[in-house]
Amino acid sequence: MPRIIIPEIIVSRLPVYLRELRHMQVLGKQTTSSQELGEQIGVSAAQIRKDLSQFGEFGKQGTGYNIAFLVEKLTGILHIEHIWDVAVVGMGDMGHAIARYQGFNGRGFRVAMLFDNDPAKVGTIVGKFTIQDSADIIPVIREASIRVAVLCVPVSAAQIVTNDLVQAGVKAILSYSPINLSVPKGVRVQYLDPSIGLQRMTYHL
Amino acid sequence: MPRIIIPEIIVSRLPVYLRELRHMQVLGKQTTSSQELGEQIGVSAAQIRKDLSQFGEFGKQGTGYNIAFLVEKLTGILHIEHIWDVAVVGMGDMGHAIARYQGFNGRGFRVAMLFDNDPAKVGTIVGKFTIQDSADIIPVIREASIRVAVLCVPVSAAQIVTNDLVQAGVKAILSYSPINLSVPKGVRVQYLDPSIGLQRMTYHL
Repeated sequence: MPRIIIPEIIVSRLPVYLRELRHMQVLGKQTTSSQELGEQIGVSAAQIRKDLSQFGEFGKQGTGYNIAFLVEKLTGILHIEHIWDVAVVGMGDMGHAIARYQGFNGRGFRVAMLFDNDPAKVGTIVGKFTIQDSADIIPVIREASIRVAVLCVPVSAAQIVTNDLVQAGVKAILSYSPINLSVPKGVRVQYLDPSIGLQRMTYHL
Repeated sequence: MPRIIIPEIIVSRLPVYLRELRHMQVLGKQTTSSQELGEQIGVSAAQIRKDLSQFGEFGKQGTGYNIAFLVEKLTGILHIEHIWDVAVVGMGDMGHAIARYQGFNGRGFRVAMLFDNDPAKVGTIVGKFTIQDSADIIPVIREASIRVAVLCVPVSAAQIVTNDLVQAGVKAILSYSPINLSVPKGVRVQYLDPSIGLQRMTYHL
């Protein structure tokens, strides 16, 4: 079956649905409705129903959604049924925070290797890992078949490191560097720039 | 003049335009086109023109945009002509990273105070600030008239701290806690959850 192209705006909401559904599971809930889910995350019930209908029939009129079933479906849709190994590049404050971040547990990701180009940091241990030399990014990541990376380097190094990651075979880069990165088709970047997040709110203040 | 309601999706792109325009300024450029800007950030030229046209006439057919003028306009639209003081709550790894983050410079924000509820951390110094007791959030933030906060606390504390921030008068919360927060009307939350960012990409892998 050919894969239907789903608008990016819908794709971007699915992880938010999944996070809330898992939270409901933790609270012991078994079923929910688009109404209830929407209230929790600030999305309309109609939007949720429309988004999910892109992928099939997940709920029943009147009885709502079985949470475990929907979690399983969304997990499959987002390709996080297995755990992705993640390379973290740039071991400043943010890199350290990511290396020790507990929030990847059960959400499809696991930090697998750390890189920095500072000789004073290379060889030191953070959490369970020894920081490796950024000069070795291409062979080491290629050897490990890692497809996902988190970029925590300064702006000045961000594009150069990105080029190395792309050459190493990385297809998804989460960037904490506040600069727009150029990547070839087939490689994706998501930005986590706190100033952008804040500016989206000060517009309304 | 009554303020026109601009769709959130457009608002969310403005900071990205601004970031790239400022980057162009650093590179010494004086003018740009919707085409060039779009190529840098992966948005179509038509989309950029349409987004900006919501706020007036910023470019001229044939000559493009004056970058300095557009930067000034966007800075005004996003209400970052003056600098917002920011309170950071939760001084774990992520809180430390935010407290020392250099990327707020020139982007409208400045860390102004730090809080934690751990007696071992309260009173210690991070960067230029002494960590204050989270128990004092409401009076201290209210006294300083702070409207913007960054939340770096564990999931278990996130809603409780959010309630305190709201009571203190905070109107914009940037949350690193991977949980959906309930806030009253008039208060905004943006989430920076690395797992969400990664899941938006693994969908395509």
